[in-house]
Amino acid sequence: MTVPPLPRLMFEDQVRAALLEDLGRGGDITTDAIIPPTEQAKTALVARKPGVVAGLDVALLAFALIDPAIKVQVERPDGSRLAKGDTIATIAGPVRGILTAERVALNFLGHLSGVASATRVVVDAVAGTKARIICTRKTIPGMRNLQKYAIRVGGGFNHRFGLDDAVLIKDNHIAAAGGIKPAVERARAAIGHLVKIEIEVDTIAQLEEVLAVGADAIVLDNMTVDQMREAVARVAGRVPLEASGGIRLDDLAAVAATGVDYVAMGQLTHSARAVDVSLKLQPLG
Amino acid sequence: MTVPPLPRLMFEDQVRAALLEDLGRGGDITTDAIIPPTEQAKTALVARKPGVVAGLDVALLAFALIDPAIKVQVERPDGSRLAKGDTIATIAGPVRGILTAERVALNFLGHLSGVASATRVVVDAVAGTKARIICTRKTIPGMRNLQKYAIRVGGGFNHRFGLDDAVLIKDNHIAAAGGIKPAVERARAAIGHLVKIEIEVDTIAQLEEVLAVGADAIVLDNMTVDQMREAVARVAGRVPLEASGGIRLDDLAAVAATGVDYVAMGQLTHSARAVDVSLKLQPLG
Amino acid sequence: MTVPPLPRLMFEDQVRAALLEDLGRGGDITTDAIIPPTEQAKTALVARKPGVVAGLDVALLAFALIDPAIKVQVERPDGSRLAKGDTIATIAGPVRGILTAERVALNFLGHLSGVASATRVVVDAVAGTKARIICTRKTIPGMRNLQKYAIRVGGGFNHRFGLDDAVLIKDNHIAAAGGIKPAVERARAAIGHLVKIEIEVDTIAQLEEVLAVGADAIVLDNMTVDQMREAVARVAGRVPLEASGGIRLDDLAAVAATGVDYVAMGQLTHSARAVDVSLKLQPLG
Amino acid sequence: MTVPPLPRLMFEDQVRAALLEDLGRGGDITTDAIIPPTEQAKTALVARKPGVVAGLDVALLAFALIDPAIKVQVERPDGSRLAKGDTIATIAGPVRGILTAERVALNFLGHLSGVASATRVVVDAVAGTKARIICTRKTIPGMRNLQKYAIRVGGGFNHRFGLDDAVLIKDNHIAAAGGIKPAVERARAAIGHLVKIEIEVDTIAQLEEVLAVGADAIVLDNMTVDQMREAVARVAGRVPLEASGGIRLDDLAAVAATGVDYVAMGQLTHSARAVDVSLKLQPLG
Amino acid sequence: MTVPPLPRLMFEDQVRAALLEDLGRGGDITTDAIIPPTEQAKTALVARKPGVVAGLDVALLAFALIDPAIKVQVERPDGSRLAKGDTIATIAGPVRGILTAERVALNFLGHLSGVASATRVVVDAVAGTKARIICTRKTIPGMRNLQKYAIRVGGGFNHRFGLDDAVLIKDNHIAAAGGIKPAVERARAAIGHLVKIEIEVDTIAQLEEVLAVGADAIVLDNMTVDQMREAVARVAGRVPLEASGGIRLDDLAAVAATGVDYVAMGQLTHSARAVDVSLKLQPLG
Amino acid sequence: MTVPPLPRLMFEDQVRAALLEDLGRGGDITTDAIIPPTEQAKTALVARKPGVVAGLDVALLAFALIDPAIKVQVERPDGSRLAKGDTIATIAGPVRGILTAERVALNFLGHLSGVASATRVVVDAVAGTKARIICTRKTIPGMRNLQKYAIRVGGGFNHRFGLDDAVLIKDNHIAAAGGIKPAVERARAAIGHLVKIEIEVDTIAQLEEVLAVGADAIVLDNMTVDQMREAVARVAGRVPLEASGGIRLDDLAAVAATGVDYVAMGQLTHSARAVDVSLKLQPLG
Repeated sequence: MTVPPLPRLMFEDQVRAALLEDLGRGGDITTDAIIPPTEQAKTALVARKPGVVAGLDVALLAFALIDPAIKVQVERPDGSRLAKGDTIATIAGPVRGILTAERVALNFLGHLSGVASATRVVVDAVAGTKARIICTRKTIPGMRNLQKYAIRVGGGFNHRFGLDDAVLIKDNHIAAAGGIKPAVERARAAIGHLVKIEIEVDTIAQLEEVLAVGADAIVLDNMTVDQMREAVARVAGRVPLEASGGIRLDDLAAVAATGVDYVAMGQLTHSARAVDVSLKLQPLG
Repeated sequence: MTVPPLPRLMFEDQVRAALLEDLGRGGDITTDAIIPPTEQAKTALVARKPGVVAGLDVALLAFALIDPAIKVQVERPDGSRLAKGDTIATIAGPVRGILTAERVALNFLGHLSGVASATRVVVDAVAGTKARIICTRKTIPGMRNLQKYAIRVGGGFNHRFGLDDAVLIKDNHIAAAGGIKPAVERARAAIGHLVKIEIEVDTIAQLEEVLAVGADAIVLDNMTVDQMREAVARVAGRVPLEASGGIRLDDLAAVAATGVDYVAMGQLTHSARAVDVSLKLQPLG
Repeated sequence: MTVPPLPRLMFEDQVRAALLEDLGRGGDITTDAIIPPTEQAKTALVARKPGVVAGLDVALLAFALIDPAIKVQVERPDGSRLAKGDTIATIAGPVRGILTAERVALNFLGHLSGVASATRVVVDAVAGTKARIICTRKTIPGMRNLQKYAIRVGGGFNHRFGLDDAVLIKDNHIAAAGGIKPAVERARAAIGHLVKIEIEVDTIAQLEEVLAVGADAIVLDNMTVDQMREAVARVAGRVPLEASGGIRLDDLAAVAATGVDYVAMGQLTHSARAVDVSLKLQPLG
Repeated sequence: MTVPPLPRLMFEDQVRAALLEDLGRGGDITTDAIIPPTEQAKTALVARKPGVVAGLDVALLAFALIDPAIKVQVERPDGSRLAKGDTIATIAGPVRGILTAERVALNFLGHLSGVASATRVVVDAVAGTKARIICTRKTIPGMRNLQKYAIRVGGGFNHRFGLDDAVLIKDNHIAAAGGIKPAVERARAAIGHLVKIEIEVDTIAQLEEVLAVGADAIVLDNMTVDQMREAVARVAGRVPLEASGGIRLDDLAAVAATGVDYVAMGQLTHSARAVDVSLKLQPLG
Repeated sequence: MTVPPLPRLMFEDQVRAALLEDLGRGGDITTDAIIPPTEQAKTALVARKPGVVAGLDVALLAFALIDPAIKVQVERPDGSRLAKGDTIATIAGPVRGILTAERVALNFLGHLSGVASATRVVVDAVAGTKARIICTRKTIPGMRNLQKYAIRVGGGFNHRFGLDDAVLIKDNHIAAAGGIKPAVERARAAIGHLVKIEIEVDTIAQLEEVLAVGADAIVLDNMTVDQMREAVARVAGRVPLEASGGIRLDDLAAVAATGVDYVAMGQLTHSARAVDVSLKLQPLG
Repeated sequence: MTVPPLPRLMFEDQVRAALLEDLGRGGDITTDAIIPPTEQAKTALVARKPGVVAGLDVALLAFALIDPAIKVQVERPDGSRLAKGDTIATIAGPVRGILTAERVALNFLGHLSGVASATRVVVDAVAGTKARIICTRKTIPGMRNLQKYAIRVGGGFNHRFGLDDAVLIKDNHIAAAGGIKPAVERARAAIGHLVKIEIEVDTIAQLEEVLAVGADAIVLDNMTVDQMREAVARVAGRVPLEASGGIRLDDLAAVAATGVDYVAMGQLTHSARAVDVSLKLQPLG
């Protein structure tokens, strides 16, 4: 299924801010000084490395905001797998505007495609198991909505968008409440009925406590693969299980093979490597 | 020398926005439901991996903005090298506020320390040469000021902050102007006298052209180490030379040994890996 | 249980904006012209009608933002039931600032207390049943976070904060998907595991369809009391049931008696009547 | 006369903010998951209860901001009286966008039409007298400009927009100045010549004081109908008189019959009930 | 009388924006590089030319926002007349912060004092007549609230703050309405009773028309001194008269001597010359 | 050469803010009351005084933002020299929108053309010498980007855009560093290689110190013409020299004749006189 695009309203402010961050108080002084206003060109966004496209609408908006005369055409929309040399979109219009918007467009496209590409790798690594890859709240400040979107584009699923859309009870909460049971009871007493409650456990003993009191999902935090396997056996499908805690690509197959339902990977958003995309101009007669 | 801190004014809006991004419309529903308002704790930000601290003031501001009753103490300020287990700062006060601000604080600290740590590694790798490590405009949208700061904390130097603070003439500009000479002349005619002009060259022939017309700095773009060495020899110290274009850590020593003055590395900002920092609570009486 | 307060960060921008909306470009020209800067007074926020306090911190912030020399003391915090004549808070300091901030403070306090008071009335009306009163997304634009908070203060519970924190499948979605089953399946395939799925049904036949495919909650939309009773019987506690659709105070007891788990009332937020609060000055020697 | 529309610039930011408040960080996850992007429909905004339309442009902007492909047609513009079942506007285009924008559009339309409808009722109740209905500064924070507009649409008139566009001397000002005369003199000495001075009086004695010193308008605050009648007689048309202070619909005819020029009603804005408007979809082949 | 200060809330956003405009993305790179963080100094804002102080609180806020450790003391508050060499305020604290905030502080102080000083000159020039000097809406975009304040500080009075706080009927309105009478009638039918109506006339004939229909004030637009004198005679005190239209300092005495009540001077705000203020540091042991 | 226009993105927020500053909470109550919505007119922006156009795109955007039905045509673009009576642009469309946007459009156009005109005068005054006229950071808060642009339009050149795009070492920095040499060395150690270093000197002795240590530019601060001439002789073209410090139009020829490369004039931005532009309507059938 194609991932639904975000409405432009949800990222337009970010693109404007990024352009202003780059333009500063003086604008693109190099291009303004050298490129005549009448100069036209066509150009293309081309992948220098393999990856998965994400954030193309966001990137292309940078051109439109700088000069509405720039025309863009999408060749490989979000979610497309890229081989080296693939054209992602073509761009045509005044050279000044294209060069001025270029870096901001590439910064969005490279970063978000990086998130989607990293996600795609780990999603593919667990293909054939029932495990879904999920993200975390370990995001770059100011980029959460877009990073969460890129996770979906890469085939992953979103965990909480923020502190207010699900209850996640961690060790500090349990300690303060005096145990798992009172913590869950306090949460149930306070929240609306459309809010799920997830609890993080470190041990099988804690897992049993959670099963006794009930929860909508359980995080197996920093468990070994053996512990996870035992957890899966004990839960026997009654509650979704989420593996979490520094899981590396190398561990992924083993973790997924334990039968957990979800694997959380913070590095997809906090440590994504950008996809390298180039923009090369071809002058137009 | 210690890197001068940024005035709080330069990052306060970003911390506010990041907190609101996480709080959403409902706030920290887990903590609010479970933690009593009177609960106090002390805690510490502790490094789980080695690295270099950057953005500690930014991170700590998150706690102050959520609850001014939270007291923080800096143990290892920006620029400190961290061993695993090192305490970066201690934090004490109402548990609710600490837990609510935690993720945003860690997201800033982890990311910016990641940038600084990656910078430190490459700076150390060229120690003993005259090469300085510099960053690029390949930054995460909305984070440029802080990423540039983290580069300095890691021992690197900043390239342009944006499109308006120096002229950087690239291939597309040269093509549109009809050559290096007219491109430089147009720039000189337009800009103020406190703006430097740098030109990107691909070949030794182009380098000679630049030397003929004059420039404040020259980028050697995607050159081989041999080409760089020749460029250094020909320039003979008349103009600073900057090596650029996908230089990896493995290549760095060889590049630096050519005698170039600067090495530009986009990956320090566009693909930084976060430093893993934990926050563990200790309940207070 | 006391409802946890919102962090000031979550409403400070709204109070600033409301003050600026009132101050315009010239400020409080009446007070500035007539009241000497040295004039001091103490005053109190006093209830002119019974009700429930909500938004007191929000209201009091208006005074602090206009003049930090104004001192406030809370007498009846959020959640307190007010009799006519009760003092909610006392305020002392420069008269100019008190008068300038007064209207904005009262506008927040009156409106949010109005929401909480209306909620309290309906919550009390269903006391003794298991029904919880919940709000909707029918809020005044720009006030959702505060209105949702006031609902909690009044003893109600929150439904969704926005479009992104739970799935709510309505008639239009069902029609577009070609039935309840495909609609639910599409949702399950797309969303994260911490997101609940609620479905709105008009008939008992639809209810059975939902039970067959499974859901986290069911809205009984515009059903008669008899239909609700039948729905409760058929569901037999397997899924939480929410009564919705123009339910008036007069109907409430009958609706709650059917055994539904939740009653949604949009009028608590879209049509709340303000609580009348006065501020009277007592000059200080 | 038709009330002039507000320029879009005056409310666009509010509509954007309201949409973002509803979209949160994830957007309309229900619609995105279930409705195919190609699905088209036509629909209509239909009154479920009688009332007066206000804010239709504001509401319709929500659709345009979410998806410019949505086409709208106004059937009953602002100021139209609605019978139950009347179509206010028709909407056609992609279903996704229509459903995503629906709630925000209805929240604006319902609230502002509620203000206009309540105003129309009281304006009609004083028809045949010379009394004009006016609003106050008791508005919902952030909505003043739109509420003031809805008052005009309902046939009412605006009192001050804020603290800076007229002088309104109340009891606290009089007390601080040491009397009505010095209060008025201070105001006259400070303000520009395009600013009117209105004074609030509680008694006939105070009224005489005001007449002696002069004012542009007088508020009769919390007076009985008999007092108002006497005030009208004494003033004899020299100064406009404004009745104010908790005047209810039941009292209105009697108040208007006293001959006062204006009747101020805070409840029109601080306690308006929303008009119930529905949006029903008709799928398009 | 001292002009009441603006609440900080009314200018804080402007000071923040001005500082960020100057700091850009990198901050004060000169000061950060050269001045040690421990360096302390005291300094003073000293007038290099005579003038009238205005905007001192605004200017001093720049220091506080950059570094709260900077202490300021007001020596000559807003409204003070300055001789060359007079100290306006003293400042003490970390040198870094003082130097970083200096230019923004001086820009506000110089500009607003310039407005106040120009106002003071013309106010003094009409001393002894009844004419009051008033400003216009010809302000620098974004500075209206502060410029209007500076006008008051200089002894002038404010005309409209914006388009919404008084009716000003000009030639284009009269032409579109088909005459002065219908224009006034339309305005009266639409506006609230606290809004004044002023009409601009070019000729004595138009003046008579206005007197016949009534208005709260009349602008004599581009009239000769003789025409003004005749207008004053005809109006005989019934309506305030405002002289407007390119009146220069040289004309002022003659204009004021005609007996007009107000003289409008756009140049006070659109063409003010800054007052030259210096900041000299004295290092502290 | 034509000065490149700023992208609309760089000033759109300022135009929106200026319009909202003027519209306030009620909009253009005069025009709304009097002008029928169907009324159309054509009009023109006409120079009342000679000058140089700058900011025309900015001004015209005000009309488009108020009503997109207003059509504009540029007759004399930015940089054109105006004689009295020249038409700058023609405007046609709904009268309401034209009148509502008029003042904001004229405020931008008048101010920015004022800056450009003042610049043109001084640029022409040094024609035939090698001296370039430059601006300073003495700008009106919030207008720096536009004022710097107007300087370029007038034939001048920009000095620093802000504190972060070049090093400018002044007396306070030199004092704190303990001399010119350590100050320059600290700066060189900290900054990137695309940042120039300029130093301000008061005496020939200091000039020699700077020459010894090296710098990219030197400010001759408050020197006499004789001192400047000596400085030019000593420097002999090795470093660009900038004359600065209260240089008046009368002094300009003599200063330029000394052979300095740049003359800095703060008054171009801090004390510019607006160009007087009128807008007169011609009703359309």
